[in-house]
Amino acid sequence: MSIKPNDPQLKSWIDVKTGSDFPIQNLPFGIYSDKHVKHHACSAIGEYIVDLYELAQHGYFPFLGVSPEIFQQDSLNPFIALGKAKTNAVREKLSDLLNSNNTELQSKKDLFSVFFKKQSDVTMLMPVKVGDYTDFYSSIDHATNVGTMFRDPNNALLPNWKHLPVGYHGRASSIHVSGHSFHRPKGQQKPADAELPVFGPTKLLDFELETAFIISKPTAPGESISTDKADDYIFGMLLFNDWSARDIQTWEYVPLGPFLAKNFASTVSPWIVTLEALEPFREKGYVQDPKVLPYLEYKGDKNVNINLQVFIRTEDGHENQICTSNYKYMYWTMEQQLAHHTVNGCNMNVGDMLASGTISGPQPHEYGSMLELTWRGTKPLKLQDGTERKFINDHDTVIIRGYCEKDGVRIGFGDCAAKVLPAN
Amino acid sequence: MSIKPNDPQLKSWIDVKTGSDFPIQNLPFGIYSDKHVKHHACSAIGEYIVDLYELAQHGYFPFLGVSPEIFQQDSLNPFIALGKAKTNAVREKLSDLLNSNNTELQSKKDLFSVFFKKQSDVTMLMPVKVGDYTDFYSSIDHATNVGTMFRDPNNALLPNWKHLPVGYHGRASSIHVSGHSFHRPKGQQKPADAELPVFGPTKLLDFELETAFIISKPTAPGESISTDKADDYIFGMLLFNDWSARDIQTWEYVPLGPFLAKNFASTVSPWIVTLEALEPFREKGYVQDPKVLPYLEYKGDKNVNINLQVFIRTEDGHENQICTSNYKYMYWTMEQQLAHHTVNGCNMNVGDMLASGTISGPQPHEYGSMLELTWRGTKPLKLQDGTERKFINDHDTVIIRGYCEKDGVRIGFGDCAAKVLPAN
Repeated sequence: MSIKPNDPQLKSWIDVKTGSDFPIQNLPFGIYSDKHVKHHACSAIGEYIVDLYELAQHGYFPFLGVSPEIFQQDSLNPFIALGKAKTNAVREKLSDLLNSNNTELQSKKDLFSVFFKKQSDVTMLMPVKVGDYTDFYSSIDHATNVGTMFRDPNNALLPNWKHLPVGYHGRASSIHVSGHSFHRPKGQQKPADAELPVFGPTKLLDFELETAFIISKPTAPGESISTDKADDYIFGMLLFNDWSARDIQTWEYVPLGPFLAKNFASTVSPWIVTLEALEPFREKGYVQDPKVLPYLEYKGDKNVNINLQVFIRTEDGHENQICTSNYKYMYWTMEQQLAHHTVNGCNMNVGDMLASGTISGPQPHEYGSMLELTWRGTKPLKLQDGTERKFINDHDTVIIRGYCEKDGVRIGFGDCAAKVLPAN
Repeated sequence: MSIKPNDPQLKSWIDVKTGSDFPIQNLPFGIYSDKHVKHHACSAIGEYIVDLYELAQHGYFPFLGVSPEIFQQDSLNPFIALGKAKTNAVREKLSDLLNSNNTELQSKKDLFSVFFKKQSDVTMLMPVKVGDYTDFYSSIDHATNVGTMFRDPNNALLPNWKHLPVGYHGRASSIHVSGHSFHRPKGQQKPADAELPVFGPTKLLDFELETAFIISKPTAPGESISTDKADDYIFGMLLFNDWSARDIQTWEYVPLGPFLAKNFASTVSPWIVTLEALEPFREKGYVQDPKVLPYLEYKGDKNVNINLQVFIRTEDGHENQICTSNYKYMYWTMEQQLAHHTVNGCNMNVGDMLASGTISGPQPHEYGSMLELTWRGTKPLKLQDGTERKFINDHDTVIIRGYCEKDGVRIGFGDCAAKVLPAN
């Protein structure tokens, strides 16, 4: 096929409103359900989802050479495992079918409701089954802020930070798709003035503004992925909220890292935007000084310009934008993270999720957590309803949004939202 | 059924040699393959495996109410998910069928080779599909040794250590069954006298003597498991080697914990010994002072007396026993670990694996890692072939063995062994 699905000139015969996350240049992948459908893979265009199972049933993807049932699973993993040649061909075929110049699907008006459903009428499910989830710590502004607050402003970054993308393993079972609400977690905290720890609901519930990428291709134990080859192993990206209980974290995390402070819940956006759709928005990476070890060197523009925003929606329905940041502020690229993660032979599986760590920018309004935005609660944020926030309150919904914009094209990720319920 | 499968008086009509890990009182579960069988669930008796799929096919487990295919999967997860009432009933039925008083199976000599195979003729596979893997740090002697070496002998335990079972998330993808060999991992290390980190094969490869337990029953997000109920969620135990690269660990692990130092490979024994089989070997737990918070209090004897041994097998085939330890030295019980892990609502899935952390005893020959046994390499171990070990060499095979013994009954876990190949 000679389709160039990223061409800014492309228009769809489906109406795409200004500011939509889902123009024809995006075509992300997800899993939906509704009263008739338990779980089908889908893409998105404007206000609609496109049912990939139904398109497959009607013979639109003969080149896949597999049964349509691959789109009838409870995750995208089997589809992703077909490999990029095939998954990209599906995106290209969708681009072709949705193109305003193409009447093939457009003319089948009686089948419109079979292939297309309003996004507001369906429920998006968890898009992938995450085998292993890793969280990095790759934003230099975030690491500097945290180091300044908790250690030493003059030596905010630890000695290893600029030599390797610091990362740690997280809990996969408690990653939920946008829309999932959860109860404020309980746990041990040790107030600074107390002799002994106390038990109760966290008082310092925080969000962390992150993105994550999904592995598209497995490696064998002992195999490493070079930065050159890393993009072949990255299916796409989504938005990620690494919910954190700061008081639980402070008490538990030395020496082995965060545990109960994080594993009660994490939230992902439902759509995986393919790495291919993000290619037009690549930018030069952070200048890395000191020079990294050879296995971490890379060529080309490997950062991505993704505008990121966080909102607190209060119970009255008001959305308060509390920060804006950008994925381009990352010090370490996805390619470096993946090369590092596998340099010791750690094996990857399809569906594994590698998250960025909190993405903060250099300016105070660009900080990606309440910890930083309110500087440990010392500078509360004022919301439209007149209340203040040092951290996240019960009944608050935190929404992360993200989009890339260039040459008149805007592609986005959809909402990554979750509501905090009182401790149970 | 009125079968008491732990009764020390029980004898099997299958010969069980003195010192065998698999008398009729054990009946653990695993997955095997051979040239005819891709993967079948099995148990063990003496020198044999018992093919559970074949027994099911021949109608021996009508009470399960499921197709024999549940024993034809590549993991025990679907079987375990049937619940303890059913999995225990299978163990009780096996105990009955293998009992020397029972001729039902004994008399079917023509079917012996269908149901039984020599363990030496089959390959044991990974017994479970691990969704999430957590490693604790619950041996007080180990934590004290590490704190003494790396921090302060007078304050070896960190302030949180006696208040909560410290734990962290590990990598599930790189857990392999006994018999898997792996290449010495490469990574960044920073020699004490160097200004910059270097890259290369780890020089300080270590084992960690651990056990792990497997989750038998899922919880919903937000749900907690009390110490009282914890045993309902624990299917059984296995031996675990949490391979560690100490030089990589030292450089990377502050502030977020071990990552590449651990995730290149871990090794489990192939047999899951059920919690029910371990009940006769329960003992009083460690006296915990200071008193723990109420959610960590528990009743009854919850430690387990499991003798543990580690051997280095050199290339000439000699096995050098390098330490002996015991699971009873654990400060925190499995029940406390599980209550802690879920107190914040973190959800569990069938097949999740929770490991103990290195199990060291109070005496120097009871230390569960080379780090401790050689005290950071300052006291090398002498092996039978005349060589010395500060850490683990290429071509060494590390074998963990474990067994319980009481009232003339000895039940064991089978070998947990893996060989180190040179870096590739």
